[in-house]
Amino acid sequence: MASLFPPSFETLIDRFAALPGIGRKSAQRLAFHILSLPDGEAEAFAAAILDARQTVHACPVCQNLTDDELCTVCRSERRDHSVVCVVAEPRDVASIERSREYNGVYHVLHGVLSPMNHVGPDDLRIRELLARVDAGGISEVIMATNPDTEGDATAIYLSRLLKPFGLKVTRLAYGIPVGSNLEFADDATMLRALEGRREM
Amino acid sequence: MASLFPPSFETLIDRFAALPGIGRKSAQRLAFHILSLPDGEAEAFAAAILDARQTVHACPVCQNLTDDELCTVCRSERRDHSVVCVVAEPRDVASIERSREYNGVYHVLHGVLSPMNHVGPDDLRIRELLARVDAGGISEVIMATNPDTEGDATAIYLSRLLKPFGLKVTRLAYGIPVGSNLEFADDATMLRALEGRREM
Repeated sequence: MASLFPPSFETLIDRFAALPGIGRKSAQRLAFHILSLPDGEAEAFAAAILDARQTVHACPVCQNLTDDELCTVCRSERRDHSVVCVVAEPRDVASIERSREYNGVYHVLHGVLSPMNHVGPDDLRIRELLARVDAGGISEVIMATNPDTEGDATAIYLSRLLKPFGLKVTRLAYGIPVGSNLEFADDATMLRALEGRREM
Repeated sequence: MASLFPPSFETLIDRFAALPGIGRKSAQRLAFHILSLPDGEAEAFAAAILDARQTVHACPVCQNLTDDELCTVCRSERRDHSVVCVVAEPRDVASIERSREYNGVYHVLHGVLSPMNHVGPDDLRIRELLARVDAGGISEVIMATNPDTEGDATAIYLSRLLKPFGLKVTRLAYGIPVGSNLEFADDATMLRALEGRREM
């Protein structure tokens, strides 16, 4: 049986269906929505995709997303650059910033160690973290990976790598419910987790 | 507090969040996914949006989506052009075609009457349907709007408009579970609904 929609429309459905968490039916709905948008809106959507891809890159210091030479946190003179909070993803930086409690800087790994998914140390921004620590001026590294198996394993792996540098390596307190996701932590929980951090 | 992501990235999140059924968190995940795509993939996504918008339009006869002068069904000589099945959306044509039971043509209303949402007869492709019927050569019109309040009201409204033309106006049998959505009907149910259609 021939395809029921024009090929260009099928292609758009395929593109949406390839996004994470979007099934075939949802992809169809989204594609129909694109067709029903007022003039200029779909074009603006396409432009937003291209624009984000072209302007956004990793901060050369902390690896967080930025469209500038350095990210806003690394650029700030009001932040304590001797304390580095290590997170898995850029969205985790947003979660911690929301608590308004943390005044140090960050290091974004862009993932966690996951042998099941073939993610090893070389796939994360670990080399960049070690270079930062090696360059000196850092007194404490706070591990803020998710409190799950892979997050814990990554934190333990990193703490072993960092210990020889003679700095304080701490871990976010388990104020965050175990097994949950850092991304969904409320501000109060995040605050308590920061206050109760302990040496590891 | 300053925005935590680069503006172009926030814009992309906003664009995703404006899509139906996509919340803020999902939009963020999708935007991150776009950044993580291999080279060329994000560009292809943007191109698919623009391409679909530029090539896809309504078939001048049945109002279904097409990228050609006429849609594949209206163009086909093997279809019975004297039987017209009226559906609310292009996706409903796909649902009926999947049953492989129907050999007539379609008319896509692009919505249903919905006073609550300010959708009146002039917002649907009703004028085009009446013009088709008025032009002659049509013996039966099958109402295949969703079996819910608005779908039923639309079918009844149209059947009153069509009766004066002296043709048979039928309605899909309620093989489709009442209150459900035409889009999710399985092939067997759709087949029974087509077979059991009755005059209204």
